[in-house]
Amino acid sequence: MKMWGGRFGKEASEEFQVFSSSISEDCRLAPYEIKCLKAWSEVLMEAGILSQEEKLEIDEALEAILEELKRGEANFIPSDEDIHTYIERRLIELVGLVGGKIRTGRSRNDQVTTSFRMLVMEECSGIEDEIVGVVRALITQAEKNIDIAIPGQTHLQPAQPVLAAHALMAFVHMLERDRNRVRLARKSAAVLPLGSGALAGTTLKIDRDALARKLGFERACENSIDGVSDRDFALDILYALSSLMVHLSRLAEQMVIWSSAEVGLVELDDSWSSGSSLMPQKKNPDCFELIRGKAGRVIGELVCLLAVMKGLPLSYNRDMQEDKHPVFDAIDTVRSSLTALKGTIGTLKFDESRAKELLSEGYLTATDLAEYLTEKGIDFPSAHRLVGEFVSSLIAEGKNFSEVTAKDLRDFSGDFDEEALRRLDPRQSIQRRKSKGGTSKEQVLHDIEESLKNIS
Amino acid sequence: MKMWGGRFGKEASEEFQVFSSSISEDCRLAPYEIKCLKAWSEVLMEAGILSQEEKLEIDEALEAILEELKRGEANFIPSDEDIHTYIERRLIELVGLVGGKIRTGRSRNDQVTTSFRMLVMEECSGIEDEIVGVVRALITQAEKNIDIAIPGQTHLQPAQPVLAAHALMAFVHMLERDRNRVRLARKSAAVLPLGSGALAGTTLKIDRDALARKLGFERACENSIDGVSDRDFALDILYALSSLMVHLSRLAEQMVIWSSAEVGLVELDDSWSSGSSLMPQKKNPDCFELIRGKAGRVIGELVCLLAVMKGLPLSYNRDMQEDKHPVFDAIDTVRSSLTALKGTIGTLKFDESRAKELLSEGYLTATDLAEYLTEKGIDFPSAHRLVGEFVSSLIAEGKNFSEVTAKDLRDFSGDFDEEALRRLDPRQSIQRRKSKGGTSKEQVLHDIEESLKNIS
Amino acid sequence: MKMWGGRFGKEASEEFQVFSSSISEDCRLAPYEIKCLKAWSEVLMEAGILSQEEKLEIDEALEAILEELKRGEANFIPSDEDIHTYIERRLIELVGLVGGKIRTGRSRNDQVTTSFRMLVMEECSGIEDEIVGVVRALITQAEKNIDIAIPGQTHLQPAQPVLAAHALMAFVHMLERDRNRVRLARKSAAVLPLGSGALAGTTLKIDRDALARKLGFERACENSIDGVSDRDFALDILYALSSLMVHLSRLAEQMVIWSSAEVGLVELDDSWSSGSSLMPQKKNPDCFELIRGKAGRVIGELVCLLAVMKGLPLSYNRDMQEDKHPVFDAIDTVRSSLTALKGTIGTLKFDESRAKELLSEGYLTATDLAEYLTEKGIDFPSAHRLVGEFVSSLIAEGKNFSEVTAKDLRDFSGDFDEEALRRLDPRQSIQRRKSKGGTSKEQVLHDIEESLKNIS
Amino acid sequence: MKMWGGRFGKEASEEFQVFSSSISEDCRLAPYEIKCLKAWSEVLMEAGILSQEEKLEIDEALEAILEELKRGEANFIPSDEDIHTYIERRLIELVGLVGGKIRTGRSRNDQVTTSFRMLVMEECSGIEDEIVGVVRALITQAEKNIDIAIPGQTHLQPAQPVLAAHALMAFVHMLERDRNRVRLARKSAAVLPLGSGALAGTTLKIDRDALARKLGFERACENSIDGVSDRDFALDILYALSSLMVHLSRLAEQMVIWSSAEVGLVELDDSWSSGSSLMPQKKNPDCFELIRGKAGRVIGELVCLLAVMKGLPLSYNRDMQEDKHPVFDAIDTVRSSLTALKGTIGTLKFDESRAKELLSEGYLTATDLAEYLTEKGIDFPSAHRLVGEFVSSLIAEGKNFSEVTAKDLRDFSGDFDEEALRRLDPRQSIQRRKSKGGTSKEQVLHDIEESLKNIS
Repeated sequence: MKMWGGRFGKEASEEFQVFSSSISEDCRLAPYEIKCLKAWSEVLMEAGILSQEEKLEIDEALEAILEELKRGEANFIPSDEDIHTYIERRLIELVGLVGGKIRTGRSRNDQVTTSFRMLVMEECSGIEDEIVGVVRALITQAEKNIDIAIPGQTHLQPAQPVLAAHALMAFVHMLERDRNRVRLARKSAAVLPLGSGALAGTTLKIDRDALARKLGFERACENSIDGVSDRDFALDILYALSSLMVHLSRLAEQMVIWSSAEVGLVELDDSWSSGSSLMPQKKNPDCFELIRGKAGRVIGELVCLLAVMKGLPLSYNRDMQEDKHPVFDAIDTVRSSLTALKGTIGTLKFDESRAKELLSEGYLTATDLAEYLTEKGIDFPSAHRLVGEFVSSLIAEGKNFSEVTAKDLRDFSGDFDEEALRRLDPRQSIQRRKSKGGTSKEQVLHDIEESLKNIS
Repeated sequence: MKMWGGRFGKEASEEFQVFSSSISEDCRLAPYEIKCLKAWSEVLMEAGILSQEEKLEIDEALEAILEELKRGEANFIPSDEDIHTYIERRLIELVGLVGGKIRTGRSRNDQVTTSFRMLVMEECSGIEDEIVGVVRALITQAEKNIDIAIPGQTHLQPAQPVLAAHALMAFVHMLERDRNRVRLARKSAAVLPLGSGALAGTTLKIDRDALARKLGFERACENSIDGVSDRDFALDILYALSSLMVHLSRLAEQMVIWSSAEVGLVELDDSWSSGSSLMPQKKNPDCFELIRGKAGRVIGELVCLLAVMKGLPLSYNRDMQEDKHPVFDAIDTVRSSLTALKGTIGTLKFDESRAKELLSEGYLTATDLAEYLTEKGIDFPSAHRLVGEFVSSLIAEGKNFSEVTAKDLRDFSGDFDEEALRRLDPRQSIQRRKSKGGTSKEQVLHDIEESLKNIS
Repeated sequence: MKMWGGRFGKEASEEFQVFSSSISEDCRLAPYEIKCLKAWSEVLMEAGILSQEEKLEIDEALEAILEELKRGEANFIPSDEDIHTYIERRLIELVGLVGGKIRTGRSRNDQVTTSFRMLVMEECSGIEDEIVGVVRALITQAEKNIDIAIPGQTHLQPAQPVLAAHALMAFVHMLERDRNRVRLARKSAAVLPLGSGALAGTTLKIDRDALARKLGFERACENSIDGVSDRDFALDILYALSSLMVHLSRLAEQMVIWSSAEVGLVELDDSWSSGSSLMPQKKNPDCFELIRGKAGRVIGELVCLLAVMKGLPLSYNRDMQEDKHPVFDAIDTVRSSLTALKGTIGTLKFDESRAKELLSEGYLTATDLAEYLTEKGIDFPSAHRLVGEFVSSLIAEGKNFSEVTAKDLRDFSGDFDEEALRRLDPRQSIQRRKSKGGTSKEQVLHDIEESLKNIS
Repeated sequence: MKMWGGRFGKEASEEFQVFSSSISEDCRLAPYEIKCLKAWSEVLMEAGILSQEEKLEIDEALEAILEELKRGEANFIPSDEDIHTYIERRLIELVGLVGGKIRTGRSRNDQVTTSFRMLVMEECSGIEDEIVGVVRALITQAEKNIDIAIPGQTHLQPAQPVLAAHALMAFVHMLERDRNRVRLARKSAAVLPLGSGALAGTTLKIDRDALARKLGFERACENSIDGVSDRDFALDILYALSSLMVHLSRLAEQMVIWSSAEVGLVELDDSWSSGSSLMPQKKNPDCFELIRGKAGRVIGELVCLLAVMKGLPLSYNRDMQEDKHPVFDAIDTVRSSLTALKGTIGTLKFDESRAKELLSEGYLTATDLAEYLTEKGIDFPSAHRLVGEFVSSLIAEGKNFSEVTAKDLRDFSGDFDEEALRRLDPRQSIQRRKSKGGTSKEQVLHDIEESLKNIS
């Protein structure tokens, strides 16, 4: 049973039905659709269009249809353009023509976007929880390894000593911002279009704001044309998820590098690693690589919808059917990535002895030495140059800072004294960074504490 | 004067200097840079590193450097890697080696992103104002044309009668959401990285939150590694601007269509239209086409930065130098588009008689007729079919609803009576949509009133 | 049965298996995989690793496995990481441990990309055929409507008279270029990686070029590291399909506009149109809108893979598993769009009387009039200005060119004579454009003829 | 002097002129424009529209205008919409109204895209040469380091021993494919639109194919509407450059990793490295990072133009003015990246002793050992498992393959004999991969030889 036809001289061709059907994608909307239709049957009863008995009969049938769908017993036919068409067809099969009344005062234009918004709101809540799961795993690792110092890097080159926990907490802050973006996307979705009709609004006298609250929305939209034209909520969630995946890809890259044979700072648990079908010695960080790759996928989904929406005139255009695939795919990609990440982060181990080894290399405290010179009144550029030359001489000798003696320092420059030697110690370098956000243990513990408050 | 070198055996090659220099792009950061350096000289004075006289001397020189830049009298040399390097070189030229002290406890990593954030905050405020300008122009048109009814469209086909003002207000709501996104992007930028050093934090004892407030930020970042790694604020503004441009492209498409010869609902002012170098009769809506095209450009800039950031490990990597081009280009594109749009929207005219003509075509009140049948107890699907067949018969006769008589109706179906004829009138169709967000005049006026409150 | 494990202390967790499995996506590769394995069993027999009986036994089992898969009777288990793992597990179940020999000298790294390339080659051929189908439908329409003239547009404004066939043929040229891109993408795919092993090449002495030809490739890759690292063929097909969809979206937009109520140049067949669930009078060009939207989807898939590949080091990285989803999705989207387009283009009708009506409006021959003045010795800018003023005066009078008399012309300017009046006729304007590519009937017929040669 | 105006009641507003002007971007087209105009003046002379004297006078003036532009002495005024308008204005200033004749039979629609195509063709040739420069630098490094073996990696984990030259040559193959794409993009551009007029073709009787060849094109376009609508050549070059930058980003990532402190396989020359303004010990691979980042930029430019073109109806729309910015920016980005890469690759050094050290780690010949077992009749899966367990036991002991004795092997399994020990040697592993594309020295030398042929 099609939803239209009186004006047409012939039926839609089967090829056209196949091409234009979105049911394989949007049957995922069914639970929201049913919830929505039940709210609408109440609206119609209050408007005197349905009797109480009709309403009850319809509600029961809707429940039955949902059960059928859940049990996988629905039979879609080619003329079921979408899940809405299917449900109405089935409803009329179950309760007769009275079922057709449910369409009064509504259009698929406001209906479909209402169900879609409900799904987005629910998924946002789920994703928020899963972000918290990863945040918790990162914080647990930070707490567990609070005393491990590592070479902090810029440009993938040794820069300054930092606490491993400090680095892990950097990712926590990225994810906190993402959680906020997901929360804002949920808020974008929480505006009810139902009651916008095809575009001009409904002739039914309904309190749309009350209906909104009943269905879990914050309020009804203020303009019915905007109501059916707007897909900002879908863009907002796609952007939030793109940003999230970019951050996960950065975390993944960090872990791929830290767990590489040459760096060896981190070892993945066997239960979250892969081998090779050919090379027996291999242990690969596939989970992180997959996440890094999937960031590209979610960026692609965002681009898809931006390109779809660009240049569309008011109000509903069928192009907008292409809103659901990118959102569903991005949601699924993100949720599976977060789940996998929680497991992988939760089980990896830092290698403390390798960390110590790396800390002794790379001249990580050269900055501290230069700053010490400025304390003695030398301007920074000159201090920088002097220390640079000192490092250069050590490289030539093949000597690390950990092997430098007070004599070596004195021999190089009269400005280097005992205190200069102390400044070469990575631990003091870390501990002297006590301003807000610095890598000293007290600052990192403070950061952990505050971050735990955010998720509790 | 390079900012580094002691550790190097030879100078950077000139080709490398040219390739890696960002000064042509980032000299735009100079005013923020200077403001920042002056705040830092105070920090250094409080920390006892600069005397009060040194601080004053430096501040004066910084002002002089800014004036030089403003007057276009700066001489960049190849070894000026960026605006920061230039300013420091010039500072030392002006005040001698004491100028080098200004670099104490800072790194370009925290410096550059601080200046960049300050610029983004300021541009966001400017863009917000310009969005309000376009909103105001749209609302003014809505008020001026409050009594013009037009055929509302879905699928670019006639759908239902709506007020032109209702359609214009749909764009106002899009822009209001964009304004909110720009505001959120500003908030993202308002977290101070300065004091993060290269990545590990600073050894200076400073109240970073106080420094933040002094420079117009909300607070200092909680984690120095995140401080130098984070470009979320740049992504947030690029997303906000992409979304904005997508909406402007929709408005532009609508205006291109409305001002097309065949539709003719709207006429652009000659002062905002183009002709053709070849075809003397042409009057083209170039302004709208350019805006529609520029939406693609801003989407491209967002993709650029997402791709740049994907998969970068902690903390600063030079790839991130590519953050400024997309943001600057997107800001300039958006600001010029908003300015042009304000002028074009402000001067266009609706053609009321053409609107009336179009309103009589397209069977726009077919839905009203079907709903009337449901009021008489017919289920909606049957009513829909009957009206569809009626429309089909009228098309065959070449007759519009405006030409239909009560007799025509009765002849077609016994269910059509006098009231049915009234339901064919577009004006009653509009007036009967009185629920929140509907196209009735009172609802649209309410929408206008509320929207005006938002921008005052 | 996992393909690895000896080096591992514990099993992969079930969550990890679920996350990292690609079998739902890549079971589509099965037929190519089987073909490939059979070629490999021959390689192994020639190398003395399999006896002839073993080879035959394996080949038979492989056929059986393919049949099972085709009948939908395969039982995937969580440890089946991908279709390759599944097939090997099943093979060993069917023929015992000898089945394991098939893995000798190969890696999944070279295997998976070989099967993927085979699929791409086959799909390219299919897509080429389907492009030809749409081209044929366009040419048929061009031939059928060869005598219909319409207002050619620039900026969506009336520009000059052209033949409808000329406009249709413009799309044919776009599609011809796309066909060439698809052909080039096929050529990119036709380089065999098999024999590259994990990355270092195989120790088996095989003639990889001969193997390439046997499997339908042009040649074997020249560098085994490149062989497993390269996804250019996937990017090439994604780009070819993006370009194709951009062209289809332009065609779609054109048809949406031409079939709009206000333009009315084209009517879609009822069998390729949609109605509305609410508005009984509606007939919507959904097919074209969907195609226009799906262009965004395919662009998103291209961006996905570009972002995935950016910044990956040599050689195989698991991120590259994300190559198949975008390619499969783009292929399916394109093929269904081409099929739908063929049907929609094939059945639409031009409205000749509406074309005539439109042709009389819009001052389409203003350029011809200006050019006539240049023939009389007036410089073009002056001629352009004079005709512009003439058009302006006619607009003020509400008069079209078709209503202008010789007297009107003379009254306006002494330079306008009888010939000037003739130049206002759209038909002569068309016929006078006889240079290659022009809109005169002979040129358009020539274009049709040449284009038919390309596809026969 | 505007190119239009007679039909307009008022002047374009200054804001509109500023917004719509493209002259800052397209003055880069001036040399092509002048070349084109000179060819057109000949066309007009042959058509009898210009006398020989007029033609000569115009040609001289055009040369003078170009010289002015080259000397930076052009004065653009707000009403110069683009470089074409400027040149025509200046031409009339220099030669009087006869200069206006040059516009006869042309439109900016066919003119601008002709000049743009000429520029693209020339840039393509330049880029091809620069790709060859980088290829040559890579091959030179491959030749110089032909005897250095390194750990080949998959998943950034040690996989199998390969020659460093083999890895370098993998990038050569990527670049060779890019060179081909650039060549194809050049071919796309080599179709002349001039003579298409605004869209309908020209009334001048000209041999457009001859004109094409005179201007360096292969042929004239077959359809004038397509001629002014088509931007495929711009998309093709943007795609070719995106693909190229993705490959350069992979090379860059590889070099960033190889030159990291922990890997240390490669050292960059000081003349192509950067230091830090804060940390005196730093030496950073900025050049590679910048290139990796700029890949994101070029991808963004491709997305920009795809999004601009999507959904545009025939024929010219002003959105298409946004074609030049992305193409120019991508060309400049690519050319500077190639130049920088040539310098950086040309001057870097492999560290042979570090390579040897790394080669002894990572159990790189585990596959060889497993394959040896299959030669003795063990099925591959079992062999794989056994070797995996052997590696696992060595990891527990902290022993590398280079430290394993024949006794260790025998103690582990009766299947391990003297030959097994030999198979642990990385050199034999490399030399045994003799099939086409394998890592053996003779294959890599063959690869080098063939690649040299391609570029000579």
